[in-house]
Amino acid sequence: MNPSRQRLVVIGGDAAGMSAASQARRLRGPEDLEIVAFERGDFASFSACGIPYWVGGQVGGLDELIARTPQEHRRRGIDLRMRTEVTAIDVTSCRVRHRDLASGAEDWLSYDKLVIATGARPLRPELPGIDADGVHGVQTLGDGEALIEALRSTRGRRAVVVGAGYIGVEMAEALLNRGYEVTVVNRAPAPMATLDPDMGRAVDDAMRGMGIRMVNDTDVTGVRTDAAGRAVAVRTAPADGSGPGAEYPADIVVLGIGVAPETALARAAGLPLGQHGGLLTDLGMRVRGHEDIWAGGDCVEVLDLMSGTQRHIPLGTHANKHGQVIGANVGGGYATFPGVVGTAVSKVCDLEIARTGLREKDARRAGLQFVAVTVESTSRAGYYPGSAPMTVKMLAERRTGRLLGVQIVGREGAGKRVDVAAVALTAGMTVEQMTMLDLGYAPPFSPVWDPVLVAARKAVAKVGARDGA
Amino acid sequence: MNPSRQRLVVIGGDAAGMSAASQARRLRGPEDLEIVAFERGDFASFSACGIPYWVGGQVGGLDELIARTPQEHRRRGIDLRMRTEVTAIDVTSCRVRHRDLASGAEDWLSYDKLVIATGARPLRPELPGIDADGVHGVQTLGDGEALIEALRSTRGRRAVVVGAGYIGVEMAEALLNRGYEVTVVNRAPAPMATLDPDMGRAVDDAMRGMGIRMVNDTDVTGVRTDAAGRAVAVRTAPADGSGPGAEYPADIVVLGIGVAPETALARAAGLPLGQHGGLLTDLGMRVRGHEDIWAGGDCVEVLDLMSGTQRHIPLGTHANKHGQVIGANVGGGYATFPGVVGTAVSKVCDLEIARTGLREKDARRAGLQFVAVTVESTSRAGYYPGSAPMTVKMLAERRTGRLLGVQIVGREGAGKRVDVAAVALTAGMTVEQMTMLDLGYAPPFSPVWDPVLVAARKAVAKVGARDGA
Repeated sequence: MNPSRQRLVVIGGDAAGMSAASQARRLRGPEDLEIVAFERGDFASFSACGIPYWVGGQVGGLDELIARTPQEHRRRGIDLRMRTEVTAIDVTSCRVRHRDLASGAEDWLSYDKLVIATGARPLRPELPGIDADGVHGVQTLGDGEALIEALRSTRGRRAVVVGAGYIGVEMAEALLNRGYEVTVVNRAPAPMATLDPDMGRAVDDAMRGMGIRMVNDTDVTGVRTDAAGRAVAVRTAPADGSGPGAEYPADIVVLGIGVAPETALARAAGLPLGQHGGLLTDLGMRVRGHEDIWAGGDCVEVLDLMSGTQRHIPLGTHANKHGQVIGANVGGGYATFPGVVGTAVSKVCDLEIARTGLREKDARRAGLQFVAVTVESTSRAGYYPGSAPMTVKMLAERRTGRLLGVQIVGREGAGKRVDVAAVALTAGMTVEQMTMLDLGYAPPFSPVWDPVLVAARKAVAKVGARDGA
Repeated sequence: MNPSRQRLVVIGGDAAGMSAASQARRLRGPEDLEIVAFERGDFASFSACGIPYWVGGQVGGLDELIARTPQEHRRRGIDLRMRTEVTAIDVTSCRVRHRDLASGAEDWLSYDKLVIATGARPLRPELPGIDADGVHGVQTLGDGEALIEALRSTRGRRAVVVGAGYIGVEMAEALLNRGYEVTVVNRAPAPMATLDPDMGRAVDDAMRGMGIRMVNDTDVTGVRTDAAGRAVAVRTAPADGSGPGAEYPADIVVLGIGVAPETALARAAGLPLGQHGGLLTDLGMRVRGHEDIWAGGDCVEVLDLMSGTQRHIPLGTHANKHGQVIGANVGGGYATFPGVVGTAVSKVCDLEIARTGLREKDARRAGLQFVAVTVESTSRAGYYPGSAPMTVKMLAERRTGRLLGVQIVGREGAGKRVDVAAVALTAGMTVEQMTMLDLGYAPPFSPVWDPVLVAARKAVAKVGARDGA
C-alpha cells in the first residue's frame, strides 16, 4: 500500500456527495485515495426531482429514479456505507463518528479530506395534526413510496397541497393526474413566489383553468384528524390575520413548503454557516477557513451573481456541479463553482414556468434601479400548428441597460427559452446586445423574432425613454 | 408641408424592406418623412420560411403566411406600390427608375434616403429540362401556390427533391406529409452540408428511417420530359465523375438548391459587392461608401463573428433585424447589426437539426486549432416520458478552450438548445465557463446535466489533455 495514501470521507450519498466521490475516484486510484461515503438513508444517488412524476404515474417505478446503485459505486472503488449515520465531526482530530442504524454500533473514522453533503431537510411547521396519518412530505424516495401507497389505499379523492412553490405545483399536477380534486393552499397572493406577483397571477389563472382550487393569501393552522388519528381536513386562516378561518376537506395532504439546509452536524462542529443556515464555502467549494473540508449540494449557500449575496437554492443541478468541482479539487485538479444567476424551470400540466436573475423586489433590495417590460408572443411562428402563447417579463438596469432578469409563463416550448437569458446574465449582456442575438429560427421553433428578443427590444426602448435617449 | 420633408425609397417589399420602412415610420411621421416602397411581386411581408409547411398541409393557406398586407402598410403611411419593379438606381442623381408591370409605364423617382432590400434569387442550374412542367422552386408564395396546384393535379406519387440543405429537407418532409414517395438527390456525401459530415450522416440515417430515399454524392444532370414537355424523371451522375449515371422517376420535382443575392440592380449602379455577390455594408447596414443608401436582408453579406469573414446567409430572422437597424438609422436613431455566429435550426418530421459557430472545416480555414467532441444525451431526464436521444458535437479552441461551434441532431426538444451555444459564442465564453452555466433544470425539460453542458465538460477534458494540463 502507498504510504502516502489518503482517506476521503464523504457525508451524504446523494447528488453532491457521490458526484464528488466519483470525480475524485476518476482522478485518483484506490491505491492513492481511499474513499468512504456514509449515507443514513436507504438510497444513494437518486433523483428527488423525479418524485412528483413518479407519484403522478409518468415514471414507472422507484428504480428509474436511481441514477447509480450502491453496488455500482462500490464496484468503482467507493466504500459506500448505507444506513450509516454520521453523528459528529471532530475537525480538530480530523475524524467523524458514525453509527450503523441497524446495529446501533458506533465508531470514529479519521479522514484526510472531508466532504459534507448532508442535503436539506423539509420544513414541517409545528402545527396540530401535522404528523397525522395522511400527511405526506415528498423529500425522499421513502416519502414517495409512502405517498404512493397512501394514494392506493385511500378511498376519498380530495387532496390538499400545502405550498405553491415548484414542489407544490408539481405535486398538484401529480395528484390531478391521479384523478384527485386538488386544492392548493398558499400563504402568498399567488403561486410561485419565485416570480413577480404579476407573473404569479398568470400561473394562478392557468392552474384554476386546470380545475385546481387555488386558495391564496392563506396560512395553514393545522390538520384536523378523525378518531383514528387520520387527517380529514386542513384548517386555515387568512394570511393577514383578518376574518375567520376556513377548512378544506382532505383525504390526503401533501406538504410542499420547502426545505432548509441540513447543517446540524456542521453547526455542532463549529463550521461557518450563513444567514440561511447553509455552510459557507469559497469558490472551490472548500468550507471557509478549513483547508481539508469541502461542502456542496443542498447544505450550502451559493453566491448569487446578480445580487452579490449568498442564497440557499436547493436544486439537483447545482448539487451535481458542486460535486464535480469538489471531486476535481479533492483529486488534485482545479475547478470552481462561480455562483448562480437563479435559473429555475418547472411545469404544471402543460403550463411551463421559468425564471432567471432578479425579480423586481430582488433588484430593489440590491439597490438597483430598473425598467420592467412584459410581452406576449408565441412559442412558434403564429401560423405553425401548436404555436402557443407565452408571456415574457424582462428587467433591465436603468441607464446601463444591463439585463437583470427574465420570467416566462407559457405552454410547450416556453420554459427552456429562459436559458438564453441565463447565459446572457452570466455574460453581463445589455438588453441592446440581446436584441441582435443570433438565435435559431425556423417556423416550427420560433417566431421570426424570438420572444426573448421581443422583450429585449421593448426593454431597450424603455431604458432609452426613461433616461431621455 | 414641412419644407425639409425627405423621401425614403425602399426597393423590395418583404422582411428587410418593410421592417425598415415600418421602423422609420415609427420614428418619423409622414409630415417629416415620405416613404415609398416598391415591390415587383404580388405579395409583401410574407414568410417564405413557412412555404414548406403550407405545401405540407400544416398551414391552412397563403393568407396565414402574410405578416402584413399592403393595405395595412398603407394605413401606416407607407406608400407601398405593388407589382412595380425598380429597373435602375442612379446614385449620382439620387433617383430610381420604376416600371408598373401592368401598364409598362416607367418613371424616375428621386430619394433622399434609399433602402435596398431586393432579396435573393433561387439558383437554377442550366440543365436540360430544368424549366419543364412539373419542376418547381419554393422561393415565393407564387411558387408555393403553383406547387400546391401541381400536387393537386398530379396523379403519380413520386417526388424528387434536388438539394439536401434546409429547404431540401423541409420539402422532403412536406412531400412525405402529402403521401409522396420521396427521393432526395444531393451532391454532398450527406444531407445538411451546414453540419460536419459525421453529424450529416446522422441526419442521413434518420431520413432513411423515415422512408426517404437518400441519393448522396450525386449531381443532377437534367430532367427528362415526356412528349408533352412534362418532367418524368431526374437524370443524375456520380458527383466525382465516376461510373454511369442513374435516373429517378419523378411525377414532381422540387428544387431546393439554394439562393444567391439578387444584386443585379446594385451591381449596375456600381455599389460594392462582396465575394458572394452580396452588397457590403457597415455595421449600421449602410452601403459602404454611400452615405444615404442602406441595404439589408438576403441581398447583403453579413459579418461572421467567428471567422471574421463576410458570408451570405439568407434567413428571415436576419432580414428582420437588418430592417429594424436600418429603420432606426434612417429615422434618426442609432442601431447596429454586429454580425452573426451562424445559428440555424430546422427539422425533418420529428428530427431536429441545429448548428451554430464553426464546423471543423470552417475552423481550419480560419486558421484555428481545435478539439472536437461528440456526446450522446437525452432531451429530458432519462426516466421522464418522451425523453429522446440527442447528439451534441462541440468544437473548442486549442489552449484557450474558447467555444467555436456546436451542432445538434436529435428529436423533440433538441434543436433550440443550440441557442445556449449561440449566446455563449457571442459572449466569447470558454467551454470551462460553460460547464458551470446556470441553465434551467427539471426532469420534464432536461437531464440534471444539460446535454450542452455534458459536451462542454468533455471538451474541457480534451482541451486539457491535448495541451498536457
